Amino acid sequence: MPTLLLNRSALKDLLKMPDIIRAVEDAFKAWGQDKANMPPKAYLVVEQGDFRAMPAAIPGAVGMKWVNVHLNNISRDLPTVMAVLIYSDPETGYPLAVMDATDITAYRTGATSAIASKYLARHNSHTLGIIGAGRQAYTQILAHAELFDLMLIKVFDRSSVAMERLINSLPDYPLKQCSLEDTATSDIICTLTPSRIPVLKKDSIIPGTHINAIGADAEGKEELEPSILKEATVVVDDLKQASAAGEINVPVSRGLFTVDEVYATLSEILLGKKQGRVDKDVITIFDSTGVAIEDVATAKLIYEKAKQVGSYTSIDLV
Amino acid sequence: MPTLLLNRSALKDLLKMPDIIRAVEDAFKAWGQDKANMPPKAYLVVEQGDFRAMPAAIPGAVGMKWVNVHLNNISRDLPTVMAVLIYSDPETGYPLAVMDATDITAYRTGATSAIASKYLARHNSHTLGIIGAGRQAYTQILAHAELFDLMLIKVFDRSSVAMERLINSLPDYPLKQCSLEDTATSDIICTLTPSRIPVLKKDSIIPGTHINAIGADAEGKEELEPSILKEATVVVDDLKQASAAGEINVPVSRGLFTVDEVYATLSEILLGKKQGRVDKDVITIFDSTGVAIEDVATAKLIYEKAKQVGSYTSIDLV
Repeated sequence: MPTLLLNRSALKDLLKMPDIIRAVEDAFKAWGQDKANMPPKAYLVVEQGDFRAMPAAIPGAVGMKWVNVHLNNISRDLPTVMAVLIYSDPETGYPLAVMDATDITAYRTGATSAIASKYLARHNSHTLGIIGAGRQAYTQILAHAELFDLMLIKVFDRSSVAMERLINSLPDYPLKQCSLEDTATSDIICTLTPSRIPVLKKDSIIPGTHINAIGADAEGKEELEPSILKEATVVVDDLKQASAAGEINVPVSRGLFTVDEVYATLSEILLGKKQGRVDKDVITIFDSTGVAIEDVATAKLIYEKAKQVGSYTSIDLV
Repeated sequence: MPTLLLNRSALKDLLKMPDIIRAVEDAFKAWGQDKANMPPKAYLVVEQGDFRAMPAAIPGAVGMKWVNVHLNNISRDLPTVMAVLIYSDPETGYPLAVMDATDITAYRTGATSAIASKYLARHNSHTLGIIGAGRQAYTQILAHAELFDLMLIKVFDRSSVAMERLINSLPDYPLKQCSLEDTATSDIICTLTPSRIPVLKKDSIIPGTHINAIGADAEGKEELEPSILKEATVVVDDLKQASAAGEINVPVSRGLFTVDEVYATLSEILLGKKQGRVDKDVITIFDSTGVAIEDVATAKLIYEKAKQVGSYTSIDLV
């Protein structure tokens, strides 16, 4: 029996944001109904970086993403983060496909933010603020553009090269290079920096803003002034992971914020167990750390589409 | 940069038991010197079976084995256990190879037992007893034949078909179909059954026997009468894993054996921190649960040999 091989270039034509948004939303709902299963990530630290094994099962699909973070790769002209996903048949364990998951990671992260924005941002949101114009910015914009009528996308990065590259890569979208202060006055803000010092100040944001805090993915990282959290409605993807390594990790470790102050998980919001935005003026925050069900939901979609259109190579692997 | 693809048939010519024995022994030594790193396996249970993500780093190599156990596969004519390993560059995180790890698992398990036997069995051991003639038996024999001058290999299985298949698959080795009692009177015994009721009785074995207890790999499984453990020198690959899911798990959970009674880890024995066999009459037991450093050590060997001889296909995966 062959195992499909889906490399980065094969995936290019298969990654469709609207489908991924639907699949990821369904996966979060399934998880909230105990129909998905996700053990904690297994972390492996080596001298030059680290690796994470991220397995998960959702209805009808099982997968395991193996992803690294090697910051020194910048000097080697290699991505700092690369990922491979093994997609298995839950019925038999057979490895149905091995696929690049570098772009899957970016797409599912964008999709998840947009889903959070759908439930937490004001429905009449028309401006999107992007703080940090790196690799993740592209898919945040694609995903939000699916769900919102974006009239202006403000982009801030300390590097003007990064800003220009992002703007040039999305010629069909209304992107504009802005100052940090200007970007902060958007209906929806996505923070996408590796910062360890808050970049977004409470005084800069306006009432009713929704913030997707995506950059903090390890202990010690934070992007928002803790005072923003104190008055906001805070939603997390996974409470344990968020308090250990997400946006709330530093404020929690310093006693400036407690896990009890988290309003809900994204699954609870999607299932209606907790209400989304209740007031036009409240600040809402989604603390996104990234969970394996997002990857497996996207991989399932990719696998089924690849089989359907026949765009793959394969190997008798096992 | 290409990722090597090494499928089961490509591996056939690359798996060389003497090299694997050396590599696995070195990996256990490195682990005992804190030069290897292995987080706990991540278990994922689904309706029809389970999956484990097994990452590890040894000097110069990183890998992650993704392996399933689906017992119903027997009725589907599929192996119950299949495994895929992603072999990564520790310096950059790049996925250097994706390989079948089904045979790697069998070879490294055989190699590890033979290493334990080298240090724990009597040096003049000439008879090997195989209890359970399934897939793992073949590599146990190959590995022991490398390190011992085997004059007779006694084989017992409840299924005569399994016994005959094993004997026919190894025409160059002195295998003989035997009763359980006869097989139990061997210098070295390997127990390779999925039993939950002890198959090896204390009264059956002779002084000085070394036993590799391999079959128990989950809570509730046991192959040896607990009274054998009580008087024996018990060595484990990993104390935590052995007490949770190895041969000692049932006796420990029933209070018939305590983890304090474990004499040493295999790493401690190999490094000389604890002495191996001290007396010709003592019973020694190696409780093998299988650890990811064994897989990564074998994968490193395979990868380097494949590159050297050029016997692989490849793909630009990430």
